[in-house]
Amino acid sequence: MKLIIDLYELTMANALFSEGDYNKIAYFDLYFRSIPENGGFAITAGLAQVIERLETFQFSTEDIEFLRSKEMFTDSFLAYLAEFKLECDIWAISEGTPVFPNEPLIIVRGPMIQAQILETILLLHVNHQSLIATKANKMVRAAEGRTVFEFGARRAHGESSALYGARAAFIGGCSGTSCVEAEKAFGIPSFGTMAHSWVQFFDDEYLAFSKYADKYPDSCSLLLDTYNVLESGIYNAIKIHKDILVPRGHRLKSVRIDSGDITYLSKKIRVLLDNNELNDCKIIASNALDEGIIKECVSDGAKIDIFGVGERLITAYPQPVFGCVYKLVAVENDGRIIPKMKISENIGKITTPGFKNVFRLFSNDDGMAVADIVTLHDEKIACPYKIFNPNYTWKKKIMSNFTAEQLLIKIFSKGKRVYDSPSVEEIQKSCTAQVAHLWDEIQRFNNPHEYYVDLSENLWELRRSMLRQERE
Amino acid sequence: MKLIIDLYELTMANALFSEGDYNKIAYFDLYFRSIPENGGFAITAGLAQVIERLETFQFSTEDIEFLRSKEMFTDSFLAYLAEFKLECDIWAISEGTPVFPNEPLIIVRGPMIQAQILETILLLHVNHQSLIATKANKMVRAAEGRTVFEFGARRAHGESSALYGARAAFIGGCSGTSCVEAEKAFGIPSFGTMAHSWVQFFDDEYLAFSKYADKYPDSCSLLLDTYNVLESGIYNAIKIHKDILVPRGHRLKSVRIDSGDITYLSKKIRVLLDNNELNDCKIIASNALDEGIIKECVSDGAKIDIFGVGERLITAYPQPVFGCVYKLVAVENDGRIIPKMKISENIGKITTPGFKNVFRLFSNDDGMAVADIVTLHDEKIACPYKIFNPNYTWKKKIMSNFTAEQLLIKIFSKGKRVYDSPSVEEIQKSCTAQVAHLWDEIQRFNNPHEYYVDLSENLWELRRSMLRQERE
Repeated sequence: MKLIIDLYELTMANALFSEGDYNKIAYFDLYFRSIPENGGFAITAGLAQVIERLETFQFSTEDIEFLRSKEMFTDSFLAYLAEFKLECDIWAISEGTPVFPNEPLIIVRGPMIQAQILETILLLHVNHQSLIATKANKMVRAAEGRTVFEFGARRAHGESSALYGARAAFIGGCSGTSCVEAEKAFGIPSFGTMAHSWVQFFDDEYLAFSKYADKYPDSCSLLLDTYNVLESGIYNAIKIHKDILVPRGHRLKSVRIDSGDITYLSKKIRVLLDNNELNDCKIIASNALDEGIIKECVSDGAKIDIFGVGERLITAYPQPVFGCVYKLVAVENDGRIIPKMKISENIGKITTPGFKNVFRLFSNDDGMAVADIVTLHDEKIACPYKIFNPNYTWKKKIMSNFTAEQLLIKIFSKGKRVYDSPSVEEIQKSCTAQVAHLWDEIQRFNNPHEYYVDLSENLWELRRSMLRQERE
Repeated sequence: MKLIIDLYELTMANALFSEGDYNKIAYFDLYFRSIPENGGFAITAGLAQVIERLETFQFSTEDIEFLRSKEMFTDSFLAYLAEFKLECDIWAISEGTPVFPNEPLIIVRGPMIQAQILETILLLHVNHQSLIATKANKMVRAAEGRTVFEFGARRAHGESSALYGARAAFIGGCSGTSCVEAEKAFGIPSFGTMAHSWVQFFDDEYLAFSKYADKYPDSCSLLLDTYNVLESGIYNAIKIHKDILVPRGHRLKSVRIDSGDITYLSKKIRVLLDNNELNDCKIIASNALDEGIIKECVSDGAKIDIFGVGERLITAYPQPVFGCVYKLVAVENDGRIIPKMKISENIGKITTPGFKNVFRLFSNDDGMAVADIVTLHDEKIACPYKIFNPNYTWKKKIMSNFTAEQLLIKIFSKGKRVYDSPSVEEIQKSCTAQVAHLWDEIQRFNNPHEYYVDLSENLWELRRSMLRQERE
């Protein structure tokens, strides 16, 4: 699937190719303008797949012949594509990092013809996985230490949505997935026991449970709601524990409910389990869960140990769009960087010009993140440092006693990868640790505080002067 | 990606395998319970990919070794998987058909161990593409004859979401896509001209436009909103038409706006184009469009010829879930079909048992679809025919003067494909034709009438008696 690319990237590249300056160095920023569901922060993800695609970015003979058949590309351009060799420098914020609107998650510097052609492939992976990692992180925080599993493959938007969605969900903090390929590809623990069909297949529920317990005595988990949870399912499960598992030296590991009032049912089940010396038996619940429902279950005292979340995680219902864009911010002319800007009727769509860098400032008092500063690429952060809101410039603050951390890391140097993606376990750990450095007010689901993402004075002045110039 | 499968399908299959009756014939229905966004109907899609996956459904040596490493499967079961050969009979409703809740879109009959293992792969493709085809069809109907293009790849949930989303959007009625691979794979026309970066890259807008016109004089489309649509973009576009295109015997094909008040701007642009003898120049608009915005543009008299829809189509925002489920409905015992049923606390989750068929009744007076009847598999539809609401049985009606069409077609016979998927053009045509046979009241976006999906008296009686039996 190498032609997962928007046609306009190729029409522009083809037109550029015959220009003398097609190799002129251009700078692009990849960033987003708002956080899904008015959240306080997002989690960036998808970089490993970006890297994988860029390292193998080539057009096959078949691709070239297909493009030739469109009769809109010159032979010399097609020859260029056939020999495509990435020459770009690329910086990115590492996966699992909490990120905010209007700061570049990726910066690409390279020949215009190349940098432009990467647009869809960069956006697609970062948008998809950041969307799911952000949603998963909310669900995991809502669960307050309880386990969250991703069970969404069947409702995913195609196979790569299932696979990379499972990856992103794990980065955001989920403990496992139902998708076997996600374990094979990334080592994410896969989990699964039985469907209702298993229970229906046999003549009665007890028989169905016994057949399962017989095959999986050391990992026995039973689904209680095929007929009636409280009148049949839980009693048969406890009976199986006593009749089959205990005599063989095993115990019932968990029970699952997939319908009904899961808070109510979990409390009733807990009592029955505990009364039968099954205090260690976990209760798993699923049924169109999301962070709001999980939060409510927790605050209502549900006795759920593991939440299985499907459709609303894998599709990020009800806000399935992560809106990263990819914008030209500068070109080089004889080695000099000329900033570029897009003006728009929609104020939010006006871009910030220039080759940039991003720093996160952490308070030395408590280690909490206090602001991100977008600067010109070669700027340093001095201490004390004056931050101010780029839109409401009278809102300012002098920062001292902080540590500044550069967020952008070099990923490719002249087309060669100079970065190793961490394992998904490492990314998940880093994500959890970094989220802990965000104020509770930023982590709130509704009406979170707006985290400071400020421009350095130099960058702000550049933007203002270009905007004024364009308007004159 | 062969292991895009939920682990529980394998744990169940493994456990079944050592049962004497793992080859017992089972029947599964794939169906959905409600229409996204409370719509009046859905469009089914994704069958071609289901067929493709099933025809090549195999486990590689690598897959088998991975599964072995989990230490939960028996060697003989893994040997079975390694030699997996599909033996199922499968019926399906053809792609592009308007479909309704609680009627099987796919029926699988086959050895339990096989039929169960197909669950995720069937659901994933049908859920994804039906979701997008349904959404696209709404957008196309909202556009009332104007062209709708799908431009969503960058906001898709992974690469297969972009590719198969473009396919489903085309089935639903879109005229083309931005995604090049969708043209290569399915022949869906791809379309694209320039990004804002093209305009920004050059020293000024006129120069940028002239460079593009120079390369694509016979298909010149210009993007007007990099700086200012009415004060700069449209004037430069008209100038390019006069200065460069006309002298070379060409004309400006189209202009595009991607921000601002597209209704207002399109009217202003139309006047300027018409005043400059550019009555044939099309106006393309994009910017987070959906069926509601398109409908409003149309009713407000916007002069938009082509709508480019991105994120809200490719993700089906704000309802990104199509909820097909896959439920065991019968097993065979010594050749006798034993219906199976799942009871649930959630009334909507109670299944309808039995091996089924689906008929659509068309009025002979005007050719309109009047009701779907779900029957037992071997039932015929006699005329006159009494239909009644399965939930409110006093709501009944005697139908006469109708033609009954069987919707389910045999796709696989004992594991062998016996059906050729039509081309996407044929599916799109069939979809358009079939939607035209639905009453306006069913096609309404808000508060549509509920189309009749009734059970035959035999099927209803079977369900009722099993439900009563279970409850006793």
